[in-house]
Order: sequence, then structure tokens, then C-alpha cells
Amino acid sequence: MSVNKCDQPIGVFDSGVGGLTVLRALQDLLPHENFLYLGDTARVPYGTKSAESVIKYALQAGGALVREGIKMLVVACNTASAVSIDSLTAAYNPLPVVGVVKPGAEAACLASKNGKIAVIATESTVKGGAYQGTICSMHSSAKIIAKACPLFVGLAEEGWTEGEIVEAIAARYLKPLFAEFGKEGPDTLVLGCTHFPVLRGAIAKVAGDKITLVDSAETTANTVKRILTELSLINSSDAAGRLSFLATDSAERFAAVGSAFLGVEINSEDVRSIDL
Amino acid sequence: MSVNKCDQPIGVFDSGVGGLTVLRALQDLLPHENFLYLGDTARVPYGTKSAESVIKYALQAGGALVREGIKMLVVACNTASAVSIDSLTAAYNPLPVVGVVKPGAEAACLASKNGKIAVIATESTVKGGAYQGTICSMHSSAKIIAKACPLFVGLAEEGWTEGEIVEAIAARYLKPLFAEFGKEGPDTLVLGCTHFPVLRGAIAKVAGDKITLVDSAETTANTVKRILTELSLINSSDAAGRLSFLATDSAERFAAVGSAFLGVEINSEDVRSIDL
Repeated sequence: MSVNKCDQPIGVFDSGVGGLTVLRALQDLLPHENFLYLGDTARVPYGTKSAESVIKYALQAGGALVREGIKMLVVACNTASAVSIDSLTAAYNPLPVVGVVKPGAEAACLASKNGKIAVIATESTVKGGAYQGTICSMHSSAKIIAKACPLFVGLAEEGWTEGEIVEAIAARYLKPLFAEFGKEGPDTLVLGCTHFPVLRGAIAKVAGDKITLVDSAETTANTVKRILTELSLINSSDAAGRLSFLATDSAERFAAVGSAFLGVEINSEDVRSIDL
Repeated sequence: MSVNKCDQPIGVFDSGVGGLTVLRALQDLLPHENFLYLGDTARVPYGTKSAESVIKYALQAGGALVREGIKMLVVACNTASAVSIDSLTAAYNPLPVVGVVKPGAEAACLASKNGKIAVIATESTVKGGAYQGTICSMHSSAKIIAKACPLFVGLAEEGWTEGEIVEAIAARYLKPLFAEFGKEGPDTLVLGCTHFPVLRGAIAKVAGDKITLVDSAETTANTVKRILTELSLINSSDAAGRLSFLATDSAERFAAVGSAFLGVEINSEDVRSIDL
């Protein structure tokens, strides 16, 4: 493998800004890697759209990143991972393609002792059944119930991340979900949408201290590191990695909304607008 | 004008299903007209996207309706009306193009006695300033304050239209908005997004009985009737008008979510999927 190849960025794709929580975990674990993040902000959200539309959009976004020259593609969007990972893997073979669903499912199986796992996600992710199927394939006796919580996305984007309103909404979504498991409730709750970790405090308060919250950002970063190592694609540079952004809607809005998700200020001059 | 022309449908365009509240008002007033409704459900919502993207999408949607053969274009989406009405009018001249912002602004000016008018809408509609500008041009001494209420869209789509949660969210948006007017508050509140009339009960409860709620569905229908009459384009048939739908995302989802907004069941077989 040439030095040049290792120096290529890792492409990270999301429907909008939510995947920046995954990018943050990737940067923490792999500080010398270069990253090129694409947010399809002109067509966000994917979570309420059909599988056909999401696959089409994912292939357009993946294609744009591949044309920029990337050494790996990370699908940092649960909905896109859930419905389009096979199409993306086939389209860009032999490029390694990593989604967030499988690492999240693995983390849930590791965390759960009683095998009762609740999953909250977008409508499309729940309908696609990817979490349910992936967890089942790893832990065949697990009882998994998934529920769509679309208002959590709006709350995260509005910045209403704590207080009475978000707790009331969390209770309205989660209490009936937990009750569906019967007398002994779930011990694990998968945050199956990259927006949801922003509301972790309120969700944890409603879930109580007997339920472990799992999100896929950290486990996805571990998977990416393992695959880069196996393929000898780790960047050997000692310098801090470069970070660049592409957005399909305006650069200003991406920078303004995205900063809260990435945890550091994004300068709109570092964001390039593209048309897919 | 030939009989054939009058028989053509009125094209109604919205970013998704919210415009079906406008279609309902149009059907009530003009029961013999044929309507062709296009919901750009693959890219909904427009309200959080840049003006450039919204104009591009509106021209693609308008173009698709014009190619189907329509006698008038109604832009039943506040965001698209607010930012793209001039582009659409120029592109399809001499086709009459009617938006929802001007009729809504007119209704607000008629309703207000004290000239203090509050407007709630999506982020893009508020930022574009179309309501503020249009009301000002009709009522130069009016005091207008507009505020984005993006979570109302999610609540309407989730069907959480009444009860404590929606009232708490309405209070959090509206009370600071009303307070901005000073000691004597507004007497008129414009529901500047087609999703908001679905939450009218909860909004009215927070606003109290001194504030008149205005939405543009009915006034837009009156404007459409007036223009059709002036242009001798009224359909003289005595039969009930035909209704057909186009959606850019799946027909099934359009039918399922849209029925609540239209007020009657939509059969997914009456919805044709198109790509813009």
C-alpha cells in the first residue's frame, strides 16, 4: 500500500449534521487521520423517507466522496446504514464501507445481561428492521422491540436538550416501549439515531439507572480503527489530521447547526457546497 | 378561452403533505374544478433549507406540473411561496401563479385592529421576511414580529395535536413572542405554515381569546376563485372535480400521512410517484 493511499481521507457521510457526533468519536480515536465529511443537508432528514429514496441519495453521496478520493467510507447515519449499506458496499467494492448499525448492535449485545433490548430510531430505520435483524443474528434469544421517536430529531436540532418538555416527550415515547417487554423490562436501550446522544441526559432520566444507554459513535470508531489496521491503511503521519466538509445545502447553515453536534466551532469557510 | 383549457386541472404544489389543508379549502370553494397536487415528499421539509435550494426545488416541481398541463399554479407551501414566488411567476409567465403568503397577509391586515401582528412560520419563511414585507406594504404602521416554530411541524406529522406536551411547546414559543410586543400584545397571530392549523386548538388555548388566529387556506382559495373568474377559467362542468396526486417519495407513505391533512382517506393507488 503506498504512503499516498494512507494519506487519503476517510469519507464520512450523513444525511445532515447528526453524523458529526460519529466524526467526533472518530477524531478522538484516530487524531492523525484526515476526514472528509459530507452532510446531505439539502435533503435531510432521511428518517421519514422510503428505502428507495434513501438508497438513491446514499449512492449519490457515496459517489461524490469516492470521486474526491477516499480510502474508506463511513456511513454515519443510522437510516442510511440500515437500508443502503449493502448497495454501497457492492457499488464501491473493494473500498471498505462501515456503517453504524452493526457496531451499535454489537455494543447492545455486549451490554445486555437479560437479553431484553429496546431500540429507538427514526421511522425508516425501525421499519427497515436492520437493528432487530443484526442483534438477532448475534444473540438469537434476545427480545428486541424497536420504536420510532421522530420528535427527538427536531428537539436536538432546536437545541431543546433538557428540561420538562424533552422529558415529557421522552416519557411518552419510552414508557409504553418499556412496558411492552412485560414484567422484567429491558436492561439496554440503543440510541439508534445520531441525533439522540444529544438528548442523552433526558433520556437517561426517564430510563432510570437500571437501563444502559448504548450509542454507536464510539463502537463505530473502534471498528474503523480495526479495519484500517487490518488493511494497513493507518496514516503514519504525526501531524493532526485535516478536517473538511461538504454540504448539499448552504455552508453557513451547516456551520451554524453543525457546531453543536461536533462540539467545536465549524467555520463556514471550511465547508464547500456541492450539488448531488 | 377554449372549453378544453377550463377543464385542465389546477396544479397545487407543496413540499409535502401540509399543503393538503389548502387543497381542502380549494375543493370546498371550487367543487367542480380538477386538481393535480404535487408533494415533494422526497425532499421535505423546505423550511430548514436555504433559499437557493428551495427555489431550485420549486422550479423543478412547478416544471413537472406545467408539463402535465395545468391552467393555474397554486404554491400551497409557505416556505416556497415566501422565497420562490417571483421565480415561479417569471418562469411560467403567462400562467397565473398564486402563493399562500399574500392572501395570509391580507387576512391578517383585515383581522387586526391594533396593528400588532405576530407571525409564526418555519425558519426559512421567517428569515426570508415575506410575511413581514407583505403586511408592511398593506399596513405601513403595523408592528410585525415573526418567529420560527420548527417543532410544530414534527408535532403535526406525529399526530400529537393536543394535550400537555403540545401546549407546553406552544407556550415556550408563543409567550416570549407575545411579550416582545410590549404592554399591549398582538391581536392577530398568523399561522404561516400549512402544518400549523392542525395544532390550532392548542395554539388558541395558549394565545387566549383576545388573539385572532389567521391561516391562509381559506383566503388563498378565495384569491384562486377570483383570478379564475377574471381570466374566464372557471370549469363550467356540473360534475364533481377529479383529484390526482404526485409524490416524489413513496405513494404509500404519502397516502398514509396525507389523509389526516386532507381530511379524507387518500388511496395510494391514486398517487403517482415521480422523480424531479
